[in-house]
Amino acid sequence: MTELNQDDSLDLLAALKEQLLSHELDALLLPHDDEYLSGEVTADCERIATLTHFTGSAGFVCVSVGRAEALPLEVANRKDRAMLELAHEQAVFVDGRYKVQVKEQVNEDVFDCFNLAEVTPSDYLRTLLPKKSRVGLDLRCVSYRYFQELKKELELAGIEIVPLEQNLFDLVWEERPAPVCSPVEIFPDEFNGCPSLQKRKNLAQTLRDKSLDATIISSPETVCWLLNIRGRDRQYLPIINSRLVAYANEALEWYINFDHLSDEVQANLEDHIGHVDIFPESGFDDVLDRLASSQCSIYVDPRTTNAHILNTLYEKGAQVETGLGLCELPKACKNATELAGEHKAHLKDGVALCRFLAWLENIAQPEIIEIDDNGPEAGLAAYQERVAELDEAVLADKVEELRKEQGEYLQPSFATISALGPNAAMCHYNHAEVATPRKFGADPLYLIDTGAHFNEGTTDITRTVLVGPNVTEQMQLMYTLVLKSHIALASTIFPRGTSGMQLDAIARRPMWEHGCDYEHGTGHGVGHVLAVHEGPQNISVRSSTVALDVGMVTSIEPGYYEDGEYGIRLENLYKVCPCTQPGCQNMLCFEPLTLVPFDVRLIIREMLTVAERTWLNDYHQNVHSIIENAADLSEAEQAYLKEATAPI
Amino acid sequence: MTELNQDDSLDLLAALKEQLLSHELDALLLPHDDEYLSGEVTADCERIATLTHFTGSAGFVCVSVGRAEALPLEVANRKDRAMLELAHEQAVFVDGRYKVQVKEQVNEDVFDCFNLAEVTPSDYLRTLLPKKSRVGLDLRCVSYRYFQELKKELELAGIEIVPLEQNLFDLVWEERPAPVCSPVEIFPDEFNGCPSLQKRKNLAQTLRDKSLDATIISSPETVCWLLNIRGRDRQYLPIINSRLVAYANEALEWYINFDHLSDEVQANLEDHIGHVDIFPESGFDDVLDRLASSQCSIYVDPRTTNAHILNTLYEKGAQVETGLGLCELPKACKNATELAGEHKAHLKDGVALCRFLAWLENIAQPEIIEIDDNGPEAGLAAYQERVAELDEAVLADKVEELRKEQGEYLQPSFATISALGPNAAMCHYNHAEVATPRKFGADPLYLIDTGAHFNEGTTDITRTVLVGPNVTEQMQLMYTLVLKSHIALASTIFPRGTSGMQLDAIARRPMWEHGCDYEHGTGHGVGHVLAVHEGPQNISVRSSTVALDVGMVTSIEPGYYEDGEYGIRLENLYKVCPCTQPGCQNMLCFEPLTLVPFDVRLIIREMLTVAERTWLNDYHQNVHSIIENAADLSEAEQAYLKEATAPI
Repeated sequence: MTELNQDDSLDLLAALKEQLLSHELDALLLPHDDEYLSGEVTADCERIATLTHFTGSAGFVCVSVGRAEALPLEVANRKDRAMLELAHEQAVFVDGRYKVQVKEQVNEDVFDCFNLAEVTPSDYLRTLLPKKSRVGLDLRCVSYRYFQELKKELELAGIEIVPLEQNLFDLVWEERPAPVCSPVEIFPDEFNGCPSLQKRKNLAQTLRDKSLDATIISSPETVCWLLNIRGRDRQYLPIINSRLVAYANEALEWYINFDHLSDEVQANLEDHIGHVDIFPESGFDDVLDRLASSQCSIYVDPRTTNAHILNTLYEKGAQVETGLGLCELPKACKNATELAGEHKAHLKDGVALCRFLAWLENIAQPEIIEIDDNGPEAGLAAYQERVAELDEAVLADKVEELRKEQGEYLQPSFATISALGPNAAMCHYNHAEVATPRKFGADPLYLIDTGAHFNEGTTDITRTVLVGPNVTEQMQLMYTLVLKSHIALASTIFPRGTSGMQLDAIARRPMWEHGCDYEHGTGHGVGHVLAVHEGPQNISVRSSTVALDVGMVTSIEPGYYEDGEYGIRLENLYKVCPCTQPGCQNMLCFEPLTLVPFDVRLIIREMLTVAERTWLNDYHQNVHSIIENAADLSEAEQAYLKEATAPI
Repeated sequence: MTELNQDDSLDLLAALKEQLLSHELDALLLPHDDEYLSGEVTADCERIATLTHFTGSAGFVCVSVGRAEALPLEVANRKDRAMLELAHEQAVFVDGRYKVQVKEQVNEDVFDCFNLAEVTPSDYLRTLLPKKSRVGLDLRCVSYRYFQELKKELELAGIEIVPLEQNLFDLVWEERPAPVCSPVEIFPDEFNGCPSLQKRKNLAQTLRDKSLDATIISSPETVCWLLNIRGRDRQYLPIINSRLVAYANEALEWYINFDHLSDEVQANLEDHIGHVDIFPESGFDDVLDRLASSQCSIYVDPRTTNAHILNTLYEKGAQVETGLGLCELPKACKNATELAGEHKAHLKDGVALCRFLAWLENIAQPEIIEIDDNGPEAGLAAYQERVAELDEAVLADKVEELRKEQGEYLQPSFATISALGPNAAMCHYNHAEVATPRKFGADPLYLIDTGAHFNEGTTDITRTVLVGPNVTEQMQLMYTLVLKSHIALASTIFPRGTSGMQLDAIARRPMWEHGCDYEHGTGHGVGHVLAVHEGPQNISVRSSTVALDVGMVTSIEPGYYEDGEYGIRLENLYKVCPCTQPGCQNMLCFEPLTLVPFDVRLIIREMLTVAERTWLNDYHQNVHSIIENAADLSEAEQAYLKEATAPI
């Protein structure tokens, strides 16, 4: 795709640099996020994709003027003190998930590409720019937390961040798509389990308990949660953009583009969420003025609120308290209805995935086992004939088709990663982003990471399965280690108050023992028909110190990636529950939501301890009994399920 | 001890309150630390012990005036929203280690006593004091980091911290001991492995690499490390107090009480550490003025530098950069000579401890096993006769006596915890602080946590051993779980860059599985003939994110404590090494320094996995072969060692 529209890019770049010059800026930092900071942006905010063709869900671009010389960039704070040479006046920064994709999509004759783990925009700008340089930034497109840290780092190098009144890229973006504006949809109480009025009461009580007058909620996911609404502006995230201010007296001011409000919704809104004062989205800056001059004490989350909002409040002398958003824990700890819904959603997802795996096994099995054992050539030929029509795209579509057969299906919760062989070594490979999806026939391993929103709940699962010849012992070893990692954490009992950061290494230890590791987090929180990556908790090396608590949903997804060869990841979703084991009253544990077999054919049985085998067999028995009883399975599907879940 | 000197306390309190009134203060916060923040203070700085008789190594006292009424104290930020009633105008705050000891030592008719995990001085002051109150604090006695956090919290409640020119307690402390001032001792290159001149060169290079002009080193341990000196001002910490300023051009200014410098030392100093400009300790405030007006960029560690120093620099407009002290990692990562010395020290310590355990077993064994099996009464009588003379003090003295037989012995590295039965449930029990040390005869379990400084290195070990009748299955279960916890972490291989905070839960997991936990950290760094608790790394739930690195020494010491019954802790020291296992090039592992058997009689063998048994048997085999070959053991000692290290 790098050839496509290359000239457009160059024209846009040239126009952007003119803007830089006319604003007396030495550089511009262009973040991927929009002003709502939700990760997935609507088409009218795909600035980085438009400028660079990089379509990932996070990243930055830096554009500079007048610094064309090849500057060596020393990453002094890192152990290897890597020296990187800057070739261009502009660079793209992406995280580890996208380090391969960025090179496929971005024209490296125009942009330098960096992995954020190695070089941040701050490292880059401090190397590139002399003291007293000015870097433009639209403060709406970064969190206040990020802005603070960046500002501090650049200030040490004598570089100033210039907040931009208007996004400079938008000024030169002539073919900018119109804003996306789907109608607000009411998310019924049967699915949400707690009427909006009750949530508002609880929030107001929290404000009063903390002697606060108001809080700004600027994460649209949280607004949707609080008001029990959803939307269709995005492909994967079932929200609409809006913000609100909630007061200690239960009053709510909602700032939203009125195009989101159909007549029908307007008529039903008050019944559903009670009285709300609705204002145009564009009026939000006015409320900041009002809040600042009112001497209200205002609570704001600097991680989910853009820097423009919080900076404006501080500049106007508002009385601000900051901390974790007051709705974040109530949203993360699902109520009984939400959890029951999650189980229903996972049952549907389990049926769809079991059908998918049965279908796949029927095509890609069982001769490949024989091939592996030096079986007859005929077997290989028959296998290759059967899989001739299969590629990564066909399989991704098949999963969605099977999910659509289930009731209350809404949409995928993220772009399915359907990855064969070496493609699976890229953690966030997307077959839709490459010229030709990879075909089945040669690769032994296939990885699928896929999820869906149903009205009842949100799913996210990864399985790695045997689909072709020439599986190696090393692959089986690594599959078994990844499974041991998964089980190590999934079977952990832990005290209340334990954070995911504390638990992360428990999953990594079995991999570490063999000198291996994975570069991504071990698990993320999952929203209820909201973001499939939802905070505040997660299970990873850094970031969140928020304790795991009853009702939270989290993934556990260790992996192993052999560059250019194969990738393995095994992901289930779990709910956090009180531990019912005797003597463990104050402990919590993980209870599986996901109901799909692991591929036992890839396990080296002797490497599992008795406890690990027991965990796996119990899990499989549970999958078998629930899926078998719930679904109208064909004979072939039943046979697959029985074999796949047989004790090992 | 609460009866002793009670009137002194009241007199001091009354005089202190007069000082508060005359300084127009509503309250005073009196920290345990002195201006050097090293934990153990010299007698002339034992302010809290003098005022309250609490002798622990950390804590705070708050004294207020005119707020006598019984105020309810709501700890709003905690889950249980505990309500505590304030009975007095003054309170003592101690951490979990001292929650029992404080109640034995402090007169609760005069002071309220709080556990810092439940109520901090900030919680207390915010409840006690109305807005616009003034709290006096000697900024020299808290770190800048602590001061910053306290200031922020109190400001939110409208309370002002008033920095005191002079410590108000010292003004009323009539019988204050004279300052302790032992001579500086040169710590020879044969033990330190890196001449001071080289350390100074490295530090200057680091300053230049970071474009810094100077750094203030205000931790006396770090000064001792940099100058390769030691001292005897304290019982357990072999340092003298002093500070220095190091410059990018390798110049050093040393601020020290000249009484520390004997003529002999002065004569040899330049040979040993090169040229140093020596100034009186009292001149340190002048250098702050000079640094501030010089436009130097100065690097300061806000965790180890007192708030007076950093506050003064900021107030005077100095150009300050803050972060982890530049000598902290070089000090923590021991060089080859230091590590070789640690092995020698641990060999000596191992011999002493093995002799101790053999001696103890000879008195307290083997009849108690029979007693446990309902053996003959005669056995019990004989056992009780043999142990009649033993108590906790006798055993602590015995260990020190055996250590003194080893060469290069300096002093204990902390007060030995010699704890029988229920006393071992108090993590920092000190038999010297109670009226009568507990006698042997009735309790099945004995815990000893003890360490020493030799010229070659510093040791710290905890063992829990069977010494009496009526050991229960529950005790054996818990002993085995603590051992499993110890082995789980000690056998972990982990990638470079991993912090102790990440590893902590690996040790806790086997305990969690049975609903248990321990309230202290899993491990701490250990200095080389310096502080037995040395940062910046540690292994615990919170705090340090500093990665474990090659050459660091750390304890691993999980435990279990059954209040009023018994306590178990199993502690070894380990050095962090590169992992030599094939395929693990980038991984690190722990290699044991401690050479003392665990008590296999307390292990439930079936609860150990094969891998755990292998680890234990390998460890014991190593202990056996090294101690047996190194020491001139008696026959009884040889027999003990052989049996104690036999494979299980």
